[in-house]
Amino acid sequence: MRFGVVARRDRPEALKLAYRVYDFLKVSGYDVVVDEDTYRHLKEFEEADVLPLEDFDVDFIIVIGGDGTILRVEHKTKRDIPILGVNMGTLGFLTEVEPHETFFAISKLIEGEYYIDERIKLRTYLDGRASVPDALNEVAILTGIPGKIIHLRYYIDGGLADEIRADGLIISTPTGSTGYAMSAGGPFVDPRLSVTVIAPLAPIALSSRPMVVPAESRIDVRNMALKREIVLAIDGQFYTYLPPETEITIKLSPRKAKFVRFTKEIYPKYTLRLKKRF
Amino acid sequence: MRFGVVARRDRPEALKLAYRVYDFLKVSGYDVVVDEDTYRHLKEFEEADVLPLEDFDVDFIIVIGGDGTILRVEHKTKRDIPILGVNMGTLGFLTEVEPHETFFAISKLIEGEYYIDERIKLRTYLDGRASVPDALNEVAILTGIPGKIIHLRYYIDGGLADEIRADGLIISTPTGSTGYAMSAGGPFVDPRLSVTVIAPLAPIALSSRPMVVPAESRIDVRNMALKREIVLAIDGQFYTYLPPETEITIKLSPRKAKFVRFTKEIYPKYTLRLKKRF
Amino acid sequence: MRFGVVARRDRPEALKLAYRVYDFLKVSGYDVVVDEDTYRHLKEFEEADVLPLEDFDVDFIIVIGGDGTILRVEHKTKRDIPILGVNMGTLGFLTEVEPHETFFAISKLIEGEYYIDERIKLRTYLDGRASVPDALNEVAILTGIPGKIIHLRYYIDGGLADEIRADGLIISTPTGSTGYAMSAGGPFVDPRLSVTVIAPLAPIALSSRPMVVPAESRIDVRNMALKREIVLAIDGQFYTYLPPETEITIKLSPRKAKFVRFTKEIYPKYTLRLKKRF
Amino acid sequence: MRFGVVARRDRPEALKLAYRVYDFLKVSGYDVVVDEDTYRHLKEFEEADVLPLEDFDVDFIIVIGGDGTILRVEHKTKRDIPILGVNMGTLGFLTEVEPHETFFAISKLIEGEYYIDERIKLRTYLDGRASVPDALNEVAILTGIPGKIIHLRYYIDGGLADEIRADGLIISTPTGSTGYAMSAGGPFVDPRLSVTVIAPLAPIALSSRPMVVPAESRIDVRNMALKREIVLAIDGQFYTYLPPETEITIKLSPRKAKFVRFTKEIYPKYTLRLKKRF
Repeated sequence: MRFGVVARRDRPEALKLAYRVYDFLKVSGYDVVVDEDTYRHLKEFEEADVLPLEDFDVDFIIVIGGDGTILRVEHKTKRDIPILGVNMGTLGFLTEVEPHETFFAISKLIEGEYYIDERIKLRTYLDGRASVPDALNEVAILTGIPGKIIHLRYYIDGGLADEIRADGLIISTPTGSTGYAMSAGGPFVDPRLSVTVIAPLAPIALSSRPMVVPAESRIDVRNMALKREIVLAIDGQFYTYLPPETEITIKLSPRKAKFVRFTKEIYPKYTLRLKKRF
Repeated sequence: MRFGVVARRDRPEALKLAYRVYDFLKVSGYDVVVDEDTYRHLKEFEEADVLPLEDFDVDFIIVIGGDGTILRVEHKTKRDIPILGVNMGTLGFLTEVEPHETFFAISKLIEGEYYIDERIKLRTYLDGRASVPDALNEVAILTGIPGKIIHLRYYIDGGLADEIRADGLIISTPTGSTGYAMSAGGPFVDPRLSVTVIAPLAPIALSSRPMVVPAESRIDVRNMALKREIVLAIDGQFYTYLPPETEITIKLSPRKAKFVRFTKEIYPKYTLRLKKRF
Repeated sequence: MRFGVVARRDRPEALKLAYRVYDFLKVSGYDVVVDEDTYRHLKEFEEADVLPLEDFDVDFIIVIGGDGTILRVEHKTKRDIPILGVNMGTLGFLTEVEPHETFFAISKLIEGEYYIDERIKLRTYLDGRASVPDALNEVAILTGIPGKIIHLRYYIDGGLADEIRADGLIISTPTGSTGYAMSAGGPFVDPRLSVTVIAPLAPIALSSRPMVVPAESRIDVRNMALKREIVLAIDGQFYTYLPPETEITIKLSPRKAKFVRFTKEIYPKYTLRLKKRF
Repeated sequence: MRFGVVARRDRPEALKLAYRVYDFLKVSGYDVVVDEDTYRHLKEFEEADVLPLEDFDVDFIIVIGGDGTILRVEHKTKRDIPILGVNMGTLGFLTEVEPHETFFAISKLIEGEYYIDERIKLRTYLDGRASVPDALNEVAILTGIPGKIIHLRYYIDGGLADEIRADGLIISTPTGSTGYAMSAGGPFVDPRLSVTVIAPLAPIALSSRPMVVPAESRIDVRNMALKREIVLAIDGQFYTYLPPETEITIKLSPRKAKFVRFTKEIYPKYTLRLKKRF
């Protein structure tokens, strides 16, 4: 079994715990790699074990941090490697255990006592090319100028679904349904479902409601105001300005995110985390 | 091919059109039955062709009316008979053609040029027994005393999803997502999906958000205020008061509603109808 | 100075604290009266001091309980007597002190170190007659049959404001803005304002938005479905069924609710209490 | 009586109507001025009558265009000159008459048969200085980077009202309540009221609700994430980036907007316009 270790870079206790995990796995005889960014913030790892996330080719990645750290790993790795998330963030919708449970969790992992929780991702095509990271949470298509609305049309499987004037449009996975999509008025979506939430952000017409469509549907978004730049934001991590005439298409990605879980419990696990947001 | 004919009882033009459809089909040599209620309001049908909806055993039912008429047919028929809905209502989310298209639509039906649009239904178990109609739109669990909130817990697949103090709880199919569930803040749901929307009605805690869960999930609802009666309302058609301690379970019904469609179009067909609500 | 004492009837510790307050004030030489309901649940008060709330004619009423107890006092007393609320409820939007602060608060009251916080109330006229209690929180006009929508028109100062099909209509004071009106989507309203919130409850048309109008405006509500009974609920305390054709008018009441406060603080006092609702 | 004439610059029919109004008033013997921008797009006006809006010192301004044109006039004029708005826009919440009513309306104006509808405005102080235009609709404090939330605290009359992580915060007059504030979930506010709506834009915590406070209240907004620039947008017309540590204060402006009206009607006039948004 080969392991990867990644830590949140801005919290020393996350880096320290990452080192203890790395050390424990090495001592136990496993191959372990550490990502470059983590190494840059804590030099105690052996340089020979350091690799960019893009080159990780391991059985599991232990991620110590919050949802942001997990999203970074998801955006950069090239294979669908199961992640065990140790929560050193605020809400931890994606992480599975608390720091004090880390070594107990790793033991169970080694013994094979776990489930893999697969989550769908969305792939964005810009003028037909898939050049941006897959979204585990959401693709946000936003006004390039804060406060200036954009005028969009969106099509589902080729049929016009709605035409909106709004601050933007959020296209979210079930995993992302507790994030930006919910701030825009979207529902909580059970993570087992293969569906996409489409939620207009502060639309002028209140008849523009959040929608839930099959994840297998093709979603096309067109900017109707060809003088206005738009911003594409993926998972709150990747940002890019797009020329106004860019043709944006969103489809189910062939890739999945995989998380190590020790129970199959969904309720009240996720709904309780939701309450903490309030 | 055998046909059934059902009309909205409170609009003479619906009854008249039903008679013309009946007459046309008879003249064309088909077996036709008419439901008792329609006959009660227009005596021109031959008495030998009159049957209660419960005994309809035909290939298609032509329903002339609004969504309410279709829901009545759905609640009473014992087999999943495809319905061709002619819109003589207000919004017509379920109907397929306008009155002037009736005979053209029937011709296409006879020639086999149609699709069947299958929609899921929800079955309600009261203390383990399925004694109430399946819901094509929604099951509403409501306070028995208007203005007095009820205190409910609901469980999804055995796990506690939420505990609410509210006017009620709406449990809706995709078909019902444009109805009561949307008034309670729920999303529009693509009719192709096999999911259930759970939406609290005017909850005290605004952290109680609408949820979307697999239609295959078991939903249990428990009334925590054992002195307060609750009302069960199915599709806005069937109402019953329940003793406070009734155990309510909602599951995917083995039955489906079937609608005759002439196109597979969903967008903008349903989203446009939605705009008319505003 | 004359005092009244009222306690929540269903919590023995509220009744006990009421007796201690009563005893302390008597010993200190003040006239004290106790309401009949409180006496019925704790017989230790001297019978000579017992009066129905309707006959209270004192300088201050010490109310030990939650917002429900305060609303009961407001509905029954005939004069605008300042209330000092001791919180033995859940949220306590109206109460001012916690139980352990009771005697310190009474001392400050006696010494004159307090403010009076005046709150507006709404008066409901049914076919021109004011026969129901004034609302400190809200007047709710609700469907008489849970789940069956009502069809209402409402007029502001004689002009048609909206026509709705909904579960009901909430007409709320600033004090009530954190209650039923907020569950219906209404805003938080600063208690210093003389405005009324009008919020449709689960309307079919989502274009029917909550409104804020001058409290001095005359609000007329008409039931358009003359076969359907409606329910009038005032402050979640007073309920009555109304014949469908009843003409309902709501205006600013000439009476006010008066609360003893020890600070003029509004923020974050009330916004923090709001957070506890979630 | 002296008049000013201003037209929307991007619609030739608005410019043509402006010239006809100008010509009619001149022929009728009145002094008339035309704003520089209008003149730049239609050179037929006499150059001697052309003035920048900042120097207008007339009794009435005839504005031919939409709400955007009126907001431009409001931002630039230095005196509170009554505006007669002729609707050549989309919704026209602020305009009073349609193009075909223009000359009839001007006749009534000259004969004195009109009312003045005064609307409050909000003044923004940046580090204590009032250097930006007064808002007739709203002051929007927005994230400088679309999709990256900002972290704000806001205080009302010195007390902390809420702390939010959101796309922004909308602070709106009653006039602006049908605009950006409503897209953020705020209520419709009667234009006669002297209140301010504060509405968080896509907040993470759904317990952060829209609020209605006295227009006379002092509202202070502080950016808690001192590395993140914010954008100030006034009436969707004036935009500026602010250094993160800028102290923002919003108060009732001493200035008012004044509109010529021919009826005192509010309902259903404004609520009907609201419906057109949907």
